Amino acid sequence: MSDTALSYPVDARNRVRRHHERGAYDHDAVHAVLDAGMLCHVAYVFDGQPYCTPTLHWREGEMLYWHGSSASRMLRGQRAGVPVCVTVSHLDGIVLARRGLNHSANYRAAMCFGTARIVDDPAEKAQALAAVIDRFLPGRSGRVKPNTAQEAKATTVIGMRIDQASAKVRAAGVGDEPEDLALPIWAGVIPVRTVIGAVETSPHVPAGVARPPELAHYPEGETLDKALRETQRIYEGG
Amino acid sequence: MSDTALSYPVDARNRVRRHHERGAYDHDAVHAVLDAGMLCHVAYVFDGQPYCTPTLHWREGEMLYWHGSSASRMLRGQRAGVPVCVTVSHLDGIVLARRGLNHSANYRAAMCFGTARIVDDPAEKAQALAAVIDRFLPGRSGRVKPNTAQEAKATTVIGMRIDQASAKVRAAGVGDEPEDLALPIWAGVIPVRTVIGAVETSPHVPAGVARPPELAHYPEGETLDKALRETQRIYEGG
Repeated sequence: MSDTALSYPVDARNRVRRHHERGAYDHDAVHAVLDAGMLCHVAYVFDGQPYCTPTLHWREGEMLYWHGSSASRMLRGQRAGVPVCVTVSHLDGIVLARRGLNHSANYRAAMCFGTARIVDDPAEKAQALAAVIDRFLPGRSGRVKPNTAQEAKATTVIGMRIDQASAKVRAAGVGDEPEDLALPIWAGVIPVRTVIGAVETSPHVPAGVARPPELAHYPEGETLDKALRETQRIYEGG
Repeated sequence: MSDTALSYPVDARNRVRRHHERGAYDHDAVHAVLDAGMLCHVAYVFDGQPYCTPTLHWREGEMLYWHGSSASRMLRGQRAGVPVCVTVSHLDGIVLARRGLNHSANYRAAMCFGTARIVDDPAEKAQALAAVIDRFLPGRSGRVKPNTAQEAKATTVIGMRIDQASAKVRAAGVGDEPEDLALPIWAGVIPVRTVIGAVETSPHVPAGVARPPELAHYPEGETLDKALRETQRIYEGG
């Protein structure tokens, strides 16, 4: 709760226009959406053409990192960085109302604005390559075969300070008009959630190799949301 | 399978670079990813700044439609349309390997390129406002209170012909190096999937109003993926 008082600056770029009552600009609200997911979408512009690339992200304070994507080739020529918008969204439900235009969805989304740069400082990059494992799988980077220098070089990590952001959340029942409430039409919510399945051990793992402790954070049937928020908490405390 | 022979044209804009062996350009592969989701991310440029907006999408042949988003205000001044990239992604699993840089994710993603325009032809718009309900909830638009002309006017639908697209899919086990296979390190996949929860009836629905037939497509515990592919099939056949 330490960040509740901190807010991102708001202007035309990040102000929530449609359903502005669903918008929030405090760090906690934005971080909660980011940390509950591992898949983000990065928007960038190349020769006037917008691209929307899905990739894996993680957060460290106000820094957002993601795994090299098609944006990498463009960034190589731009040491000063390029403007991007990184969005993380979760679909939580389908909302069925009495009239068509009151149909909606429950969701959580965070849009983050900043300048993306390739992480090329060797120390920062080594830390990022450990973080991309440990943030999701606590302690695992120390339990796997170390990366070679060549492997590290072949991997691209991109980083961005979150300059501005907004969160937008709908988590509610049906928003029917008062005059529609008595209509003999069914209304309600179909909830959806992303859950963890039964872990599949690789057939090549030698007999006798135990499941590592990091798997305990991903119990079958649990929501991915909860597992990711918990592993982020461990990562921040570590 | 009728579209297997049809492919989107490939050039620098949509060619899959990293892990090109995971890329596909045929209509069926792209449609399969689009139709298994209802949440897309739209990248567009406004005053040189990229934006990545999450919204609800649906497909009708080679036309992709989505619900009015923050891009709407920009599109109002651009009758010729603006270039966008619409991406739909699904996270299917977390892949734990023997060395850090072989860690991966299973996923399906489709990136679609085209020119977005506001749907303002009254007949096309009326059809789109019915489609956004019926594509997900077969037949429901005819069972709810009709939209007023004013409501329809206040809602924005955006449409785009898919000019180019690519699909990228990883659906595999651990990609360990041959020399790592005997290492005493655990490796495997944590599967994740998005599932449907128990439907919640609005407390305002009068007693005696039955659950409508469209809910049968969303049984508790089923994957959203399967429900959306099935409702798309019905929508196309209707």
